[in-house]
Amino acid sequence: MLVLTQGDPAGIAPEITAKAWHALREQGPAFVWVGDPALLEGVVPVSVIDDPAQARAVFADALPVMPLSLAVPAVPGQPDRRNAAVILESIRRAVALVQAGAADAVVTNPISKDVVQGPDFTHPGHTSFLAELCGAEGREVMMLAGPSLRVVPVTVHVALRKAIEQLTVARIVETARTVAAGLARDFGLAHAPRLAVAGLNPHAGENGLMGDEEQRIIIPAIETLRAEGYEVTGPMPPDTMFTPQARANYDVALCMYHDQGLIPLKTLDMAQGVNVTLGLPIVRTSPDHGTAFDRAGQNRADPTSLVCALQLAGRLVRNRQAAEGRKTA
Amino acid sequence: MLVLTQGDPAGIAPEITAKAWHALREQGPAFVWVGDPALLEGVVPVSVIDDPAQARAVFADALPVMPLSLAVPAVPGQPDRRNAAVILESIRRAVALVQAGAADAVVTNPISKDVVQGPDFTHPGHTSFLAELCGAEGREVMMLAGPSLRVVPVTVHVALRKAIEQLTVARIVETARTVAAGLARDFGLAHAPRLAVAGLNPHAGENGLMGDEEQRIIIPAIETLRAEGYEVTGPMPPDTMFTPQARANYDVALCMYHDQGLIPLKTLDMAQGVNVTLGLPIVRTSPDHGTAFDRAGQNRADPTSLVCALQLAGRLVRNRQAAEGRKTA
Repeated sequence: MLVLTQGDPAGIAPEITAKAWHALREQGPAFVWVGDPALLEGVVPVSVIDDPAQARAVFADALPVMPLSLAVPAVPGQPDRRNAAVILESIRRAVALVQAGAADAVVTNPISKDVVQGPDFTHPGHTSFLAELCGAEGREVMMLAGPSLRVVPVTVHVALRKAIEQLTVARIVETARTVAAGLARDFGLAHAPRLAVAGLNPHAGENGLMGDEEQRIIIPAIETLRAEGYEVTGPMPPDTMFTPQARANYDVALCMYHDQGLIPLKTLDMAQGVNVTLGLPIVRTSPDHGTAFDRAGQNRADPTSLVCALQLAGRLVRNRQAAEGRKTA
Repeated sequence: MLVLTQGDPAGIAPEITAKAWHALREQGPAFVWVGDPALLEGVVPVSVIDDPAQARAVFADALPVMPLSLAVPAVPGQPDRRNAAVILESIRRAVALVQAGAADAVVTNPISKDVVQGPDFTHPGHTSFLAELCGAEGREVMMLAGPSLRVVPVTVHVALRKAIEQLTVARIVETARTVAAGLARDFGLAHAPRLAVAGLNPHAGENGLMGDEEQRIIIPAIETLRAEGYEVTGPMPPDTMFTPQARANYDVALCMYHDQGLIPLKTLDMAQGVNVTLGLPIVRTSPDHGTAFDRAGQNRADPTSLVCALQLAGRLVRNRQAAEGRKTA
């Protein structure tokens, strides 16, 4: 059973949650939503439950909800900090249910850092809060996965200038180890994970003609990883590594900065991209978009990314259970 | 009539030239090749001519060649500096033919800077040599055009760190003016060219949260261009500006660095990307790949990009002639 968090109630989360239930009620995977049932009133049939074990039986007919109560009613498009505590409580409960073995994976709806920031939440983002709840702070790695491509940016939400400064051999090596472990454990690959490491500069620097980060940082990182037994290619010229032929030769692209990975991912798989957090003890996915306060309450939000996030979480759980079954058998 | 240069005879240029003639001999556009006919001997029927005006009559049956003589026979895969003078002479003749009104556009086969570098050639690349021959040095702008997308990188073959340093308001504004003029003149658009300007940083900096180049450089450049009457949007978040929906709203994407433009172009249109030089008095296109010495002489080179470069040159010439006809009518 998957647990879906409430997300910010003033964004599109309630709407895409209802639409995702419609999309998945027959085929699954089933999920239980931890949030205020008033947000779905009149939109979908809701079944209030107190244990995720009850969710499967009702899922085809009603959206199972483990109830929370907002502090103030939500107004679409108007985020309200008074609901911050409930937004965070939904995340805490979801993680606790998985930690207790009552559910299998957490899927998170979008929240806004501006709304939840405060004494209870001093994290740079949603994901590091989840990592802390799991006792894995600092080990989380963001992967974006679509039908065509998986990418992991080694540096993330920083200015491009700063991203270049943040690149180190250790950062690339540690990220790659986490990614390889996550792929091997949860992604049901038939072979050892194949990592493609991007260069930083045009044409991967052309042997130092255009930038030295390949020589100083990326190649040493690749050599370290190969010495540890990982299957790694690179540094790849960034512009040609996302063609169909190139993509056939790797399972994940390690990118040096945000847009190097996100441009090809969104260009190829815009609506279907899913955010997967590797490096946590639990399975966690989320849609690859934000709260979209500007589109809330208009019944025109696209639930595709959330549906894909739920479907991928379901597959990751099955793969992990199959792998653990093989191990203990 | 299009003029195709010889390119480096030790690369794939002779092979893709022969294949392009096969692809285009019936439908056109017709072209004349300026090179050593020995390179095509036994590969395609050749018709040696001394004026491009003779090319159209023979094109369906033979590849028209205006002959040059290599200094030493070419060995596929083994570039030879002794042929540098002939490689450059082919380019000079092609440009001279267009300047004299004997031909309409230059399409260039790939050359290697390492081979031609010397007292006769001190340029950073092929394109600036062409610009000099046209009396337009420093005004050349590289556009990559595919069926899905046109991109212009504002900074090009430099380290990413250096590309960020090279960004200035003037550079963006001047590039945009050249691009808008080229699109309006040669691309047969039904409306004023619509330019989309990318941000530099993730999410276009999120109002200065991640980098200040948008505030300091890109937004002032966009405001200058708008004040001059150009249709410009941006700064666009780089990762979402290449989706099909986003691409429908602009004619060209101005990108801040090489891979920001080349990643989506090659991901979407790998084999069909064409290099177009804007800012020259003449029409010039070229395939979007290099000499490929490592693949030469194996009959497995893909001529698609050269075929697309010839086809696009043909369309640009027709559009320009139609526009000039309208002007003088």
